Amino acid sequence: MDILRNLAELRTWRAAAGSVGLVPTMGALHRGHVSLIEAAVAAHDRVIASIFVNPTQFNDPADLAKYPRDLDRDADIAAAAGAVAIYAPDVPSIYPDGFATKVTVAGITEDFEGESRPGHFDGVATVVTILLNQVQPDASYFGEKDFQQLAMIRRMHRDLALPGAIIACPTVRDDDGLALSSRNVRLLPEARQASLVLHRALMAMRDQAEHSRDNMFRLVTMGAVLVKTEPAVTLDYLQVVDPDTLLPVDTLVPGARALIAATVGGVRLIDNLELAPK
Amino acid sequence: MDILRNLAELRTWRAAAGSVGLVPTMGALHRGHVSLIEAAVAAHDRVIASIFVNPTQFNDPADLAKYPRDLDRDADIAAAAGAVAIYAPDVPSIYPDGFATKVTVAGITEDFEGESRPGHFDGVATVVTILLNQVQPDASYFGEKDFQQLAMIRRMHRDLALPGAIIACPTVRDDDGLALSSRNVRLLPEARQASLVLHRALMAMRDQAEHSRDNMFRLVTMGAVLVKTEPAVTLDYLQVVDPDTLLPVDTLVPGARALIAATVGGVRLIDNLELAPK
Repeated sequence: MDILRNLAELRTWRAAAGSVGLVPTMGALHRGHVSLIEAAVAAHDRVIASIFVNPTQFNDPADLAKYPRDLDRDADIAAAAGAVAIYAPDVPSIYPDGFATKVTVAGITEDFEGESRPGHFDGVATVVTILLNQVQPDASYFGEKDFQQLAMIRRMHRDLALPGAIIACPTVRDDDGLALSSRNVRLLPEARQASLVLHRALMAMRDQAEHSRDNMFRLVTMGAVLVKTEPAVTLDYLQVVDPDTLLPVDTLVPGARALIAATVGGVRLIDNLELAPK
Repeated sequence: MDILRNLAELRTWRAAAGSVGLVPTMGALHRGHVSLIEAAVAAHDRVIASIFVNPTQFNDPADLAKYPRDLDRDADIAAAAGAVAIYAPDVPSIYPDGFATKVTVAGITEDFEGESRPGHFDGVATVVTILLNQVQPDASYFGEKDFQQLAMIRRMHRDLALPGAIIACPTVRDDDGLALSSRNVRLLPEARQASLVLHRALMAMRDQAEHSRDNMFRLVTMGAVLVKTEPAVTLDYLQVVDPDTLLPVDTLVPGARALIAATVGGVRLIDNLELAPK
C-alpha cells in the first residue's frame, strides 16, 4: 500500500499507474466505502482512495473537530478491499497558500442539505474538482447515500468537463436497514432503534408509489405520518424529487427519488430511495 | 487547418495530437493573438486556437452584440501563424443543457475590471476552466495585456490543479505604443491619438519608478496628472499593484505593475506595464 502525503507524490504515482479508479473519502471507512473500492477494483488496473477531511465543507466547527481520523485503520480497510494507494494529502496540497477559488453549482444544491448546511456544497464541489484534476482518474466512485451530493457532482462533472467518469454505487445498509454512515457510531442504542423508521418510511413509500403515481403529495404525507410514530425522531425534510434536477415532482417520474433527513438523539441522518425505475 | 465545431470533434483530434499548446480567444484575431500562437508553435507539436465569444463574460449585452465574428478570417490568421486547428465550439459543447456551475476567484477579481464589469471574471474563470479541461493542453497561452485576467487565471489554475502550464506573453503594441485590442477598431482617429497618453503615462511612471521607489502614491499621482492633459480621456483607475495578488503597493516591490483603464471616445481601454523586474 502506497501512502501518498502530497501532490508531488501523487503525480509520480499517477504517471505510472495505468487505468485508475478513484474513491474520494473523508476517512472513517466503513462497508459503504468498501463497496465503492470493490466496484473500482473490478474495473481498473489500480484503485486509489483519497482521505481528506475537508475543512471547507463543514459548516459546524464542532462537527469538524469530532470527525474521526485514523489513517492506519483506514489504510488497512482500503488495502483489504483491493486499493493499492491512499492519497492523504497535507492541506497545502489541496489549498495552496493564497487559495482563492470556489466552485458552486446552482439549483441542485439549494434545498435539502444545502438549506441546513450553508456553504457545505460549495466546499464539496471545490474539493472534488481539485481531487479529480489532481488524480486524473479514469473513473470516480460515489455512493448513492449522499444523493444530493451525487447529483451535484454529476452536474458539475458534466459542466466543467472534469476528467474520467462518475460511477454511482448503491447505498450499503446494516441488516436492520440503517444506511451506513460514519455518524452512526454516535447513535445510542435507543436512538438507533428509532432511526430505523427512516428506512421503513422510504420502503413504505416505494411499496405505495404505483398506487399514488399521480399524487406524490399523498405519498409524502403517508411517509411523514409513519416517521411521526417515532417521537425520538425529528423530521427535517421528506420529499420526492427528479433524480437529476432534485426538483420536487408531483407524479412518479422515471427514477423518482424520495429524500429524507431527520435528527435522532442529536445525530442528523439522511437517506434516500428510488421509487420507480429510471 | 482542422475546424472543430463541437466537443466530440475536439476529443477525437486531441487523442491523436501529441504535445498541444492552446491559445484561447474570442476571435477577432490581431497581432497580439498571433504572438501567442507563435510562442506556442515554438514549444508544441500542435497548436490549437479556441474561438468562443463567451456570452457569460459580457456584462453589457450591447457589447456582446457588437463583438466582431469572422471565423474564415480568424482561421486564415491562425493558420498563417502556425496553428493547425481551431476549436470553435457550439454553445452546448461549452454550456450543456441545464448548465449550473460557476467558478469564482476571490480577491484578485474584486477591484479594477471586476468593479466596473460585474460578473465578468466569473464568466472568464468558468469558461477557461471548461476549455482547459476539454482541451487538456500541455500549456495555455495568455497575453499580459489583460493582466488582471492573467493573474486570476494563474491563481485559479494553481488552486484547481487545472491541466498544463500557463504561459504569459508580452503585450503587443502598434508602432505608436497603443496596446493591441479588438476594440481599437472602434476608436476614431482623434480618440486614437488621445488614447496614446495611457502608454505614455505608464512609460513615464516606469522611468520615474526608481526615484519614487518608496512612494508609489506620488508615482500614481504623476501618471494621473499626465493622463489629464488629454481632455478626451476619462481615467477610470491607475494603480501600482503586486503582480500576484493585485493588491496596491506603497513601495516598488519586484514585479510591481501599473494598471490603467480609461474611456476614450466611448471606448473603454486598459493597459499595464511592469515597473520593476520580478
